[in-house]
Parts: sequence; structure tokens; C-alpha cells
Amino acid sequence: MSRTDPLSEAFSQTEYQLVGHDRRLVQTLKEAFKVVKGEQHSDMYGKGKIIEDFQDKMAMYLGKETSVFFPSGTMAQQIALRIWCDEKGLKRVAYHPLCHLEIHEEDGLKELHQIEPVLLADKNSVIQLEDVVNMEEEIACLLLELPQREIGGQLPDYETLEEISSFCREKGIKLHLDGARLFEILPYYKKTAAEVCSLFDSVYVSFYKGIGGIAGAILAGDNDFAEKSKVWKRRHGGDLISLYPYIISADHYFDQRVHKMEKYHEDAKELAELYNQCHTVSTLPQEPVSNMFHVHVDVRKEELESILVDIYKTTGIGLTSYLRDVDECTCSYEVSIGDRYEKVPKAELRKAFQMLDNSLKKH
Amino acid sequence: MSRTDPLSEAFSQTEYQLVGHDRRLVQTLKEAFKVVKGEQHSDMYGKGKIIEDFQDKMAMYLGKETSVFFPSGTMAQQIALRIWCDEKGLKRVAYHPLCHLEIHEEDGLKELHQIEPVLLADKNSVIQLEDVVNMEEEIACLLLELPQREIGGQLPDYETLEEISSFCREKGIKLHLDGARLFEILPYYKKTAAEVCSLFDSVYVSFYKGIGGIAGAILAGDNDFAEKSKVWKRRHGGDLISLYPYIISADHYFDQRVHKMEKYHEDAKELAELYNQCHTVSTLPQEPVSNMFHVHVDVRKEELESILVDIYKTTGIGLTSYLRDVDECTCSYEVSIGDRYEKVPKAELRKAFQMLDNSLKKH
Repeated sequence: MSRTDPLSEAFSQTEYQLVGHDRRLVQTLKEAFKVVKGEQHSDMYGKGKIIEDFQDKMAMYLGKETSVFFPSGTMAQQIALRIWCDEKGLKRVAYHPLCHLEIHEEDGLKELHQIEPVLLADKNSVIQLEDVVNMEEEIACLLLELPQREIGGQLPDYETLEEISSFCREKGIKLHLDGARLFEILPYYKKTAAEVCSLFDSVYVSFYKGIGGIAGAILAGDNDFAEKSKVWKRRHGGDLISLYPYIISADHYFDQRVHKMEKYHEDAKELAELYNQCHTVSTLPQEPVSNMFHVHVDVRKEELESILVDIYKTTGIGLTSYLRDVDECTCSYEVSIGDRYEKVPKAELRKAFQMLDNSLKKH
Repeated sequence: MSRTDPLSEAFSQTEYQLVGHDRRLVQTLKEAFKVVKGEQHSDMYGKGKIIEDFQDKMAMYLGKETSVFFPSGTMAQQIALRIWCDEKGLKRVAYHPLCHLEIHEEDGLKELHQIEPVLLADKNSVIQLEDVVNMEEEIACLLLELPQREIGGQLPDYETLEEISSFCREKGIKLHLDGARLFEILPYYKKTAAEVCSLFDSVYVSFYKGIGGIAGAILAGDNDFAEKSKVWKRRHGGDLISLYPYIISADHYFDQRVHKMEKYHEDAKELAELYNQCHTVSTLPQEPVSNMFHVHVDVRKEELESILVDIYKTTGIGLTSYLRDVDECTCSYEVSIGDRYEKVPKAELRKAFQMLDNSLKKH
């Protein structure tokens, strides 16, 4: 996404963008701090009103006894799995082959915690009950990521979640929720966060995806789990003297956006439909179940790049800032709906998609 | 330091305080961001102008090839030691018995990295050349903390540092600097940061001690070391999407205070003299070698507490917000000089110390 490539450059110069809330600018922090009084005391190594109030608020929202603020989800989730492994005396967990811990964390789970993962399900599918039931290895914890981001944000049926949860409880397997995008799936499941979280022993949520904060995460569970997680937070170097820059912004944007998730979901469905009407374009999932989906186009990356740059310059609408090669003749990108989408005039939007469809047909 | 105890309560209501820069308030962040434009782009997972510029600036200042910004020193130092241990294929290091890694990190070094420490020197002394030379165990890395915070901020002679550095180089032992308070000791050594750092293979500095930022640390070394540290930063969960709240404030307060370290040192010497003139009071070290020292008073904690509360209420000057038991008839506390000290009117200051001396004599 470097500024030197033409697609990203053209995208940054469009008037309207179809993805995200806004560019990641210092303004995000300034905005959140505008309403905060300078005399407010910093949190101090995990204590103090700023951090405790937010932790209480999120514990309540998630329906868990206690929640602990972390600088990152990477840290929070490794720690959750470590606690459950230690409790069982077994350093083995299970998760999806495209789990964040498996592909984005430089093997921290293995290198720092010596925890061995069992990869469940085909990488193009979400984990189903039979994947869990048929697992041959004994594990301490199963991690489910809802939605499964790397395959477009897919979800299992809610009944499947309930069945997996029951099975795990019966077998003494802890169930951990990678809820980086938990807020975003609640409208589809038509459940509260607490209802979904009640199926899990521990839960992580993030504040810079749909919520649009600066960084930071919450890890929630029972009191004993939370206390242990604080010890591990210190060991990891995450028990900073002051986490308030992230906490205050997380709280601010949570209040501002958590009720907009249904709107983002509706917008995502509308936009996916526009994409699916275009020649050689398909979205994954076809009908989004959250604010996100992946776009697959059966065209070589360089060709789609030049088509998109043309559209951006002609219509002033930016569809994506990057493209990823899937194979020689298909490329893809991720779409996450945020505040920007609703600002795009519908007539202009249709024009851009007409142009995309025409260009792809000519191609 | 809870607000419910009378000493901390009385301290917080004094007009002048002899320690630190200011209370840890949200204002610290607001102040640093006042001059920053909202349109500035966030750093993104360790990349971007904000983080790269500051890393370059600190690498230059410390005289190292590369520097990497970390959310915390706890994270940075464990990682430094891990890199040196991996390089030598030996998971053993040496440090002082009161090293931060030994007493404040919940054994992260052992629990996450399986590194075994050798404790060098008596806990009341700084590490000397003979401690290193006489060490029986083979080690990958020696960590020196300058100044040794938990014993009042003591320092070895500069010649000793040079000798230890030469010895380590000769023996293939990496030398790591815990420079949490490096800026603060430069006036005493009459050296530049780069001169001190040239004796070490890797260096950590902090931005919320003498510099007075919000949080954050720099780890510096050669290019290969820095690249490895970035991989471990990700594993630890410290490679946040945005670290700019800490970077911008670190940079702001670095510029504002790094040239004031000599003044803080002079003030510390003046204040220590005032303490040492009081009955049953002594400072450690007797003459400070940085902006910090410890105060020891041969009085029971509860009695000193009531003496101090009286002084605070009568003179409006706060000496400390807390007391620590050393033994049944001695208590102590730490003094770090910052911006507040110079604001205290000298006549009032002398009055407070007269009152302290009188109260202790009567006692």
C-alpha cells in the first residue's frame, strides 16, 4: 500500500471512497481527545479510573465477569491460549488455517509459548461441528474467529456455534472467541454481544476495525482468567504505565459507531450486489454477513489496476487502494464498510460500477 | 500511592512538589499534540514517516546504526537479551540482583524466553569489573543498568564501564545498556549519549522518566539486531498498527527536556544536601550522580508520615507522596528531580527543611 504505486496514489486522490471510515490520521486522536479534560488522571500500570471504567463497561457489554484492556489483540490472544493451556497442562490448541495467530504473528504462539496448533477445516471454509468432533488430537482450547476474515468474513450458522460450544464444554475444551470483528456480525446473527460471548470461555475484541479507534483490545472472561491475563500482560511488556491514548479513543469511537453496525451490514450487502452484477466479478461471501467481503475479479492484476485508475480519475470514486494476486488470471481485495460509504452519491456510485462492468466486458 | 492514604492525599494538595515534572494527566498528551497537524498520517505497523523519522533521530543521537520504537522497555529488553542468547546459542545472561527484569516483570524473561539470569554483585552495590571477571558461568550477554535505580541511582566510574566493555568484547559477551535513565547521567559522566552507547552492543532508553513523555522506548543497535527485534516485537504483540500517541509525545518532550538534565542534576545535588543536613536523614548516594536519589530516615513509617503531613499542610511543599519500610525503624523513598523543583521558592523550601529537621530532632 505504498504511496508510490499508481493505484494507491489514484485512490488517495479520489473524492469518495467505498471502504473504511477515514484515512488513519492523527485527527482520529485529536477528535477523541477534544471532549476529554486535561486534568483527568492517566491510568497507571492497569489501575485508575480511565482504564477501570472502560474495562467495566466492556465486561458488561460482553456479559463477562471481567475484562482487561490490552495494547494489541496479538498479545491478548496468545495470552488467552496460554492460560487455557496451562490450566489443562497441555500445550495444544486448535484453530483455522488462516487464523491471525498462524499467519500474521511471526509464530509468537510457538516461539514465546511453545504452544502447538492443530489446523482445523479447509482453509476456504469455516470450522464446522464435524471438524471439531473428528479432531484426533487432544487440545486445551479451540479458537473460533467470527467472522473468518481471510476468507471474506464468513460465518458458521448460529446453531453450529451453539453445538460446538456444547461439545467443547462436554469435552473440557475451552472455547475462545477471536472477536476482532464481533461488533460487525451481531446484526446478522440478531444477537447481543453478551449472547454470542456466553458460548465462549474467553473473548477478544478489537477497537480499530469497525469501531475505528487508534489501537487496543479487550480480553474478557471470568475473574481468575482476567487476573492471570494481567500477569502475562506484564510479562509480554504490555502493562504500560499509560494506555489511555488507546482507551479514550476506543471508548469514544465505540460509543460513536457500535450502533451503526447494522447500517454497515446493509451497505455491505448493497455494495456486494453492485460488484456481483459486473462481468467476471464475484464477492466472497456472495451476500455479506458483516460489514466486510472480498472481491474477486478474473483479470490480471496489472490490467485491473489500469481499469480502476481510469474509474477513479473519471468518477472520483475509489473502490480499493490495492490488489492482491490470487492466481495468474484472478486478483482480489478486501472491502470493509465504514462511515465513508454512505457519503457517496448513489448516482455517481452507479456510474462507477457501470464503467467497471463495461471495462471488464471489453477486456 | 492510592488516594485514600493521608500522605498521598496531603501531597496532592500541596502547592509545590519537590519531585517529578507534573502529575500524570491527560494534559501531557494534549500539550504534545497541540503542535501536530491532524492531517499527519499515522504510522502503520512500524512503517511511515512519524515512526521512521523518530527512529532515525534517536539512532543518530545514540550513535547506533538503527533504532526501533517499542511500546515498553520490558518488551524491548527481553527481546534484546533473547536476540543475543539466540546468536550465541546459550540462554544465559547476567545482571544486577535488582535489575528491572528480575523484580518488576513477573519473570517474563524466564517464562517467555527460558533465559536464565546470573545475578552479579551484592544488591547494594553496582556491578564492578571484578564481578564480571570472576563470574564462573558462561553467558551470552551482560546487562548494565545506568544508573542502578533501585539503590538510589548509583553509577560505576566511567573507567570501570570502559574496562567491562573491553573485557566483554574480548570474551565474546554482548553488552546491553538498560538506559531507562541514560539522558539523566550524561552530565555526571560528561559524555554524549553516543559516547556512552559506543561501549554497548545494544541500548534501551525510556521516554517517560526524565523525559516525561506518556510511555514508550527505543531499542538501538546494528541493522541486523534491529531487524530481528522487529520480528520479536510482532511476536510479543508490540507491533501496533499505530504507536504515534507515544512517539509524538516522546519526541515532543525529548526536545523540551533533554538539554535540562544538567539542571536536574544540579537541583538533585542541592536537594540532597538539604536532606543530609536533617537529623537522622541520609541520601543514597550521598551526592547524586543523576536527577535521582533515595532518602533514608531513621524513623518508623507511621511517625514520619505524620511529620510529613504536618509539613505539607504548614508549608504547602510536598516532599514525597509515599514511604517504604526499610526495617522497623527506617523508612525510605525515591526522589526524581524534574520541572517542578525549580518552581519552589527557596525561602519556603528552607522553611520546610527546617521544620523537618526540628520535628526529627524532637522525635
